[in-house]
Amino acid sequence: VRVKVLGSAAGGGFPQWNCACSNCTRIRQKKFRGRARTQTQLAISTGKDWFLLDASPDLRLQLESDRDLVPRRGSSKRSSPIMGVILTSADVDRVLGLLHLREFQPLTVYATESLHRILTEDNSLFRVLHRETNQVSWKSITLDKSFKIGELRCTPIPIKSSYPDYVSAARASELVASEALIGLEVEEASSGKKLAYFPSLPALSDDLRTRLSACDLVFLDGTFWQDDELIRLRGTGRSAREMGHIPISGEGGTLEWLGALGDIKRTYIHINNTNPILDEESDEHARVSAAGFALTHDGQEFEL
Amino acid sequence: VRVKVLGSAAGGGFPQWNCACSNCTRIRQKKFRGRARTQTQLAISTGKDWFLLDASPDLRLQLESDRDLVPRRGSSKRSSPIMGVILTSADVDRVLGLLHLREFQPLTVYATESLHRILTEDNSLFRVLHRETNQVSWKSITLDKSFKIGELRCTPIPIKSSYPDYVSAARASELVASEALIGLEVEEASSGKKLAYFPSLPALSDDLRTRLSACDLVFLDGTFWQDDELIRLRGTGRSAREMGHIPISGEGGTLEWLGALGDIKRTYIHINNTNPILDEESDEHARVSAAGFALTHDGQEFEL
Repeated sequence: VRVKVLGSAAGGGFPQWNCACSNCTRIRQKKFRGRARTQTQLAISTGKDWFLLDASPDLRLQLESDRDLVPRRGSSKRSSPIMGVILTSADVDRVLGLLHLREFQPLTVYATESLHRILTEDNSLFRVLHRETNQVSWKSITLDKSFKIGELRCTPIPIKSSYPDYVSAARASELVASEALIGLEVEEASSGKKLAYFPSLPALSDDLRTRLSACDLVFLDGTFWQDDELIRLRGTGRSAREMGHIPISGEGGTLEWLGALGDIKRTYIHINNTNPILDEESDEHARVSAAGFALTHDGQEFEL
Repeated sequence: VRVKVLGSAAGGGFPQWNCACSNCTRIRQKKFRGRARTQTQLAISTGKDWFLLDASPDLRLQLESDRDLVPRRGSSKRSSPIMGVILTSADVDRVLGLLHLREFQPLTVYATESLHRILTEDNSLFRVLHRETNQVSWKSITLDKSFKIGELRCTPIPIKSSYPDYVSAARASELVASEALIGLEVEEASSGKKLAYFPSLPALSDDLRTRLSACDLVFLDGTFWQDDELIRLRGTGRSAREMGHIPISGEGGTLEWLGALGDIKRTYIHINNTNPILDEESDEHARVSAAGFALTHDGQEFEL
């Protein structure tokens, strides 16, 4: 299985249009050792067909940046190797990219029934995906129940969370609470190779650690270094944990939690622009590396 | 008044993710004389504050690409020179960029009441613009009635059109039909310099030609070269005129219509990936130039 990291930043990307934090300021001034990043986006494949994990607001340029993801030579006038998209949450930075894919292209979108309802019943814009028959078809996915995409077996892992703020409390009460957020486990049938994708992780558990330890490659929530990172910057707002992201550092952080795992590839993804690990000369970056974690970056490719 | 062209393509951009037309194929193969283009986006200013005309799906990277549009040196940790956005239609490629601007930044959005209703009543995603007080405020604009943004006087010019397909007929009947699409005339109070912005032009009139002839700079709908351009490619679908775009060429095309105007800067914007004028070696490109029109391109700047 091939995995492309098309984007590796949290919502807003890095740098973020309205941010003048130390990271954003220095990278704009080219006084920063580290990379710019677009919003988190993975693509996976076992052959010619590709599937997207989530749909980033930067998706149009992310697809165009990769020669495997544009129409093939000799293909018909309108075509794409992108066969489907699997959604893991209704967050803007996970779903907005679907609207980049509005040009009459047949596609399958895999999502829980609750996400399907939010997008298609509560947001008329998504009707652009249904201007013709044979455009987008939605497939309902069930928690803990595997489904096949090409040669890959995908399992939606429920994660206790809540719906994004834009979903009203009244609306949320009509939806299935446990469908608000999933992680994904993807296994190649022939080789048994497995990857895990958890860009939002609001709680840690022994069960989850056991599951991740059986994977070959783990994409883990690397949004914030510390719990009060955004409050320090903005002087207001919510903590990392209140926003559904266990921070990397400190007691109960993900570095400690997964640091002792054996021989698996551990990578941080969905890294916020404020996170000091983006600075490759920082102590925080060094600590992450020393603990056996890597930072994902745009344009990166894995083969399992 | 300064005008930045941050994007100059029609919806989908150029190249378009799922398009293998001659233009898209050749530019990917680097066998094309012409430029890639992101989706249409203008920014205007008379000083330090900037205003956006519409909000492109590519807005995040468009803002980051221009040093005048990122937070200023020495500004507070979260800030932006972008003070507001003026919307001219509810099309996906005119409004999606608002969701790129979701990070708690104070902004004014100027739109007709009908557009305001479509976005905020029919699309729950837009609530991300209202997670805090003092985030986005909406100002209703009235057809033919000027309003001020900074030192500029903006006039919404009604254009007979219909709402995008994603707005149901039942919903459209509750809205004001004449508010579906506007063009903009922007005048600098001190100098009297005027620009016109009409990226969608479904009909031509003598009144409009008179109006444009009094402007210093005109951005005109350059979507399609000919009426059946997209039908030829896809083998199905609607004509340029049926999609609300008078083509450039032929009898009743915009080239003939505005070609005889005097000393004003005439530019085509919102150019579709299929349009032969994108190819700088094409006859069509030569004909546009000979008639006194220029193609806008990303990164272009005008000063009036």
